[in-house]
Amino acid sequence: MSATVDLIIQPRWIVPVEPATTVLEHHCVVVDQGRILDVLPQGEASVRYQARRTEHLGDHVLIPGLVNLHTHAAMNLMRGIADDLPLMRWLQEAIWPIEGKHVSPAFVADGTLLAAAEMLRGGITTCNDMYFYPDSAASAFHRVGMRAVIGIVMLDFPSPYASDADDYLRKGLAARDQWRGSPRIGFSIAPHAPYTVSDAGLERAASLAAELDLPIHIHVHEVESEIDTSIARYGARPLTRLARLGLLGPGLIGVHAVHLDETDLALLSHHGCNIAHCPTSNMKLGSGIAPLSALLERGINVGLGTDGAASNNRLDLFQEMRHAALLAKAATRDAATVPAHAALHMATLGGARALGLDTQIGSITVGKQADLCAIRLIDPLMQPCFDPISHLAYVAGREQVSHVWIDGELRVQNGALLLQIAHKELLGISTLWQTRFAN
Amino acid sequence: MSATVDLIIQPRWIVPVEPATTVLEHHCVVVDQGRILDVLPQGEASVRYQARRTEHLGDHVLIPGLVNLHTHAAMNLMRGIADDLPLMRWLQEAIWPIEGKHVSPAFVADGTLLAAAEMLRGGITTCNDMYFYPDSAASAFHRVGMRAVIGIVMLDFPSPYASDADDYLRKGLAARDQWRGSPRIGFSIAPHAPYTVSDAGLERAASLAAELDLPIHIHVHEVESEIDTSIARYGARPLTRLARLGLLGPGLIGVHAVHLDETDLALLSHHGCNIAHCPTSNMKLGSGIAPLSALLERGINVGLGTDGAASNNRLDLFQEMRHAALLAKAATRDAATVPAHAALHMATLGGARALGLDTQIGSITVGKQADLCAIRLIDPLMQPCFDPISHLAYVAGREQVSHVWIDGELRVQNGALLLQIAHKELLGISTLWQTRFAN
Repeated sequence: MSATVDLIIQPRWIVPVEPATTVLEHHCVVVDQGRILDVLPQGEASVRYQARRTEHLGDHVLIPGLVNLHTHAAMNLMRGIADDLPLMRWLQEAIWPIEGKHVSPAFVADGTLLAAAEMLRGGITTCNDMYFYPDSAASAFHRVGMRAVIGIVMLDFPSPYASDADDYLRKGLAARDQWRGSPRIGFSIAPHAPYTVSDAGLERAASLAAELDLPIHIHVHEVESEIDTSIARYGARPLTRLARLGLLGPGLIGVHAVHLDETDLALLSHHGCNIAHCPTSNMKLGSGIAPLSALLERGINVGLGTDGAASNNRLDLFQEMRHAALLAKAATRDAATVPAHAALHMATLGGARALGLDTQIGSITVGKQADLCAIRLIDPLMQPCFDPISHLAYVAGREQVSHVWIDGELRVQNGALLLQIAHKELLGISTLWQTRFAN
Repeated sequence: MSATVDLIIQPRWIVPVEPATTVLEHHCVVVDQGRILDVLPQGEASVRYQARRTEHLGDHVLIPGLVNLHTHAAMNLMRGIADDLPLMRWLQEAIWPIEGKHVSPAFVADGTLLAAAEMLRGGITTCNDMYFYPDSAASAFHRVGMRAVIGIVMLDFPSPYASDADDYLRKGLAARDQWRGSPRIGFSIAPHAPYTVSDAGLERAASLAAELDLPIHIHVHEVESEIDTSIARYGARPLTRLARLGLLGPGLIGVHAVHLDETDLALLSHHGCNIAHCPTSNMKLGSGIAPLSALLERGINVGLGTDGAASNNRLDLFQEMRHAALLAKAATRDAATVPAHAALHMATLGGARALGLDTQIGSITVGKQADLCAIRLIDPLMQPCFDPISHLAYVAGREQVSHVWIDGELRVQNGALLLQIAHKELLGISTLWQTRFAN
């Protein structure tokens, strides 16, 4: 007798990510109670299971939901507000003044909502966020049903949100208490960067992360001047300093990691750290090219991040997959480095592992949560298709994402958000803040 | 009294490309008999002109049609057939064997049709093509009404198309004779590369180009080994050899130009040559990073090319604009280099100038042909928009292209091709050849 289940998805191809390079044809994914119950040939599925709903996706490839390992979601409100400026000028002349004047719980809730809508439409089901007012960010992600790890952000300098490192921590931990038990909202300890948090603050972050079993989310080695400043001020490169202060370990997510010498690579490898590689942001701000091949060769776990919309300017992991693969080939002059499946691995399982969520998400594996994304590949714009994994990295765009499920629940259908949020509300939010910034 | 005209387009913004960085708001473009008759404020237009048709595009930016300065259109049939291989292995192990077995007039007509459909949907109105059977390529471009400059390709080695350099030239010139007088089909002399054409062939190419007043379209300095081989064989770097043989001049379009020393840059500048920069292809094949900033600083004219779909893997000038701007910033570690408007200039007027067509296309200028492209920017995915030029380079995708006109005739409307070619025919073509390659 056949078992009744919630959902059967019958795509043309399944790329489960694990095992690497596998493409299943004419298989289906069986989903029940939010989880992946089975992955099996379509013929067998019809014998074993009866589904309350069946999704026939004959032109599509099904992959795990994408994991955006680094973003500042609320910064969607500042998309493209200042371009073609280097990191420090961009921060000091454009971003920080606006943030100082405008950041508020409403700013964060609105900006995060815009970002979450953008990410979902592009197949991103989980993100690793860092910004002010984590409670407001959590509310926005919760509203759209997206999985998010929210940074308990820490800085030494004051903002409209908090006055000093202790105040940031206190407020962030209070937000975490409020969201405890929420199935899709998690938290990290997020000291902004080695150059904005003191030794005492970083030590506090390390001990809190250990005590609460939370990942640490921190920008590191983004530009060369950051390293020079650290040597002048602390007598050590930032990663060496973080090692001394006890921050390096399998819970650490180092963001950017563009400028790494052999010592840095050895430290990251020795401590089992994770890297959030953000190729578009690194290019756009002129930060440089991260040594992605060297990281992967050493077995260091790497995920992909979009960074915020103000320095990218889109939250699009298809773009990041493509840029990760292409930029590594250009930098090493080796077309074989970072092949398509490596880019897809980083965008899914690599990100999940960095967040400590790889037993729950990141691959199409029986027992994991049904966070899934279907991409329509049969379109004259994309034809022919000899290898769907190659197409995911080098041909597809987020515009081909047709269906997105989180915990087995449909969030995007035929490219449109299934949310209680109208386009009009999202456009209204954007116009509102654009007008405020202008005045 | 008001004049009656064919078409008035009323977009939210117009970016005419010339003058640089200009954004006109609430203006309109008046089109008559295939040309741009006027560009003026919307209020004035309604007084001066009466249009047979008015296109209200309140969410859109209007730009000149994009110019793809280097492609092998027919290679769309081989999109993604072999990835993650370096140039010489990719050519020798994957591409050349398939071409040797399958290339035919039907292959070229079918592949070019797929490519033209892809390019049109992405806002590309003109391309500079190089492949076998130029007559078949011309037929396909003519069928869809796209503007194309077709290479009279020359190689020293035989192919199913021709036996030796003289045979390639004879057949290519015959194709040119056939298409003489066609308003949108032009030709170039296209010696494939310095390493595939002898001195005698290159000299012949130079004299023919001068005699017939045609541009020269040639791959140059794509990989380092090409330069080493040239020094060993001819005692000179390829560009130095081309200079000696009389090929360098304002009619030369050098494709790729990744590896350039000071002598090369001086030669290109001195002779007023043009470069077709192909950042995606250069990254994907591991060729390296072309010194785009150095080229632009010397005043060398640069356009953008997608290369063929087998090494990109999409014919998308939005992608090339983004990659040109981002990669130059990463390589120079200067976020201010190649700003958004420079990327747009290369993708339009730079390409037009390289083809000798800048008096006819490449900018929204009174008297030029009405090759135009409208992009929808008002979408929550892309909001807010502080600067439409920034959005064209860093946010928009070809999926936002809604309307495309060539010679004032609508080719794409609301994102769909207005052609006598069904999706089904295009998919059928792709499937047919995919099956043939497999057998």
